Amino acid sequence: MKFNKIVTIGIGESKLDENYWRKIDTLAEKRISLPKDSPEIKKQLEDADCVLVNPFVFKLDKSLIDLAKKLKFIGVLATSYNAVDFEYAAKKGIVVCNIPGYSTEAVAELAFAVILNHIRGLDKAKAQIKAGNYSEPAFSNCHEIKSKKFGIIGLGSIGSRIAEIALAFGADVYYWSRNRKKDIEKKGIKYQEIEKLLSECDFISINLALTKETECFMNVAFMDKIKTGAVFINLAPNELVDIKALENRLKKGDITYIFDHCDELTTEQANQLSKYKNCIIYPPIGFQTEEARVAKQEIFVENIVSFLNGVPIK
Amino acid sequence: MKFNKIVTIGIGESKLDENYWRKIDTLAEKRISLPKDSPEIKKQLEDADCVLVNPFVFKLDKSLIDLAKKLKFIGVLATSYNAVDFEYAAKKGIVVCNIPGYSTEAVAELAFAVILNHIRGLDKAKAQIKAGNYSEPAFSNCHEIKSKKFGIIGLGSIGSRIAEIALAFGADVYYWSRNRKKDIEKKGIKYQEIEKLLSECDFISINLALTKETECFMNVAFMDKIKTGAVFINLAPNELVDIKALENRLKKGDITYIFDHCDELTTEQANQLSKYKNCIIYPPIGFQTEEARVAKQEIFVENIVSFLNGVPIK
Repeated sequence: MKFNKIVTIGIGESKLDENYWRKIDTLAEKRISLPKDSPEIKKQLEDADCVLVNPFVFKLDKSLIDLAKKLKFIGVLATSYNAVDFEYAAKKGIVVCNIPGYSTEAVAELAFAVILNHIRGLDKAKAQIKAGNYSEPAFSNCHEIKSKKFGIIGLGSIGSRIAEIALAFGADVYYWSRNRKKDIEKKGIKYQEIEKLLSECDFISINLALTKETECFMNVAFMDKIKTGAVFINLAPNELVDIKALENRLKKGDITYIFDHCDELTTEQANQLSKYKNCIIYPPIGFQTEEARVAKQEIFVENIVSFLNGVPIK
Repeated sequence: MKFNKIVTIGIGESKLDENYWRKIDTLAEKRISLPKDSPEIKKQLEDADCVLVNPFVFKLDKSLIDLAKKLKFIGVLATSYNAVDFEYAAKKGIVVCNIPGYSTEAVAELAFAVILNHIRGLDKAKAQIKAGNYSEPAFSNCHEIKSKKFGIIGLGSIGSRIAEIALAFGADVYYWSRNRKKDIEKKGIKYQEIEKLLSECDFISINLALTKETECFMNVAFMDKIKTGAVFINLAPNELVDIKALENRLKKGDITYIFDHCDELTTEQANQLSKYKNCIIYPPIGFQTEEARVAKQEIFVENIVSFLNGVPIK
């Protein structure tokens, strides 16, 4: 089976490798690729049975879904569904597919990259070498993950992987999640109330999905509960953290906050946070590995193939 | 039981925290602390029954051991015994204690710190933020440990820990060692011939002890066998690697070599290696964590206490 017409919106040629475009082109009679601001979008949607969309630049709302009377499948080139009114689409019998999990390992590994970079003073170490000094460094206060309390807020796929790796490092691993996860508890990862986790853990990684309920999860009260000296890592959306509450805590100088989604802040906010020495900012590199880049495309195309073959999509 | 006289050689006051000096002072009638070049050393050794020595600055050879006619115990403030003629001491019934294993976790964690720093481009990422650019980085070619072949040469305590952590990251872990280690093989860490390991692994960590047999273990033939694109990590003594063979391989530009014992090279050698972009040099920071610093002193003093109590020392 094939689609009659695939319309892609906001997915520049460079967003997919050539071999994936070639594969997509075998799945439809024709493909129309439109930029996000094309005046043709409405017209082209009318007889499209498949729409592939880049949700970071284009929203597929109710009115557009209503326009596309032949639409059967929407492929979203991201993990998040948010830019597509997927509940409305589902009601109309249209299948919407996102790309879950392609960057799970990339993000989990980055958590340890940024923690270890910080606690082993790698920047200072490299600066010393650059200055031509090959002797024992004069700096100290480096630390180990081993035997520390490592807390994870939100135990989805990324949180679970961080928990497992932390366990291998010899940390004492705790998690808080809305629901208990008995499977992972069997591995020795212990459930803990959120307040206790915040106030006792030396490393804390927040890995919640962003929903209306989790927005500003880290409010003033929670931010103040974080253990003195703790390293708090946020490789998840920044909206999980109340920026003012964060800044108030950073001012005290007694925790380290590391995050990578600075592109979600205004430049003003990012500049403001970058003034704090105990706030370590990375560009959004959590998902940026070659492996994740390939997996993302692989799953994106596989979703379309599975739909056409009538195979249920996970 | 107590010693009559402890002589320390080359162990400055700052080498041990005050509480450990206090503890040592409870273990003898008196303590004489001498700098490495003190003219008094020979005279003070004559009636010492315990000598504590910093092997990096002072060698306790046969003639000195012969001088110390009442000597029962030598405490070495390092992992290496090499600066003490311990075989000769043993023949004379003198117990020699080193400090094994205090930095096992520190070194194993550093292996992942330097690997992840490299494969995730953290230096570039931070430089971008410093330049005030908070958007998605333009660099790519970042990688994951997951699903890669990770080879470990030498499966002692540090090598074993690196193997276990690599396994948790989802790597396919191999080891080569003079002797098979069935215990660790049960965990899924596979034995592999050295040539095959070098030519197939994406990450290779060398963790051999330095002996006459392992000096220049990485010779021209082995160095040339390393897989194109591989990252080779040496947090063990540099003498394990033939520097000329290393340089020849670095010239090809197709492997990355990361090491931290640059203090063991001449400045000329270190400067020469630092010219290669694919040679990443850290100062000797493998053992430099607060946890290792405390554990080292703890074990050093515990060895003396155990000896006095007649408890066999591991």
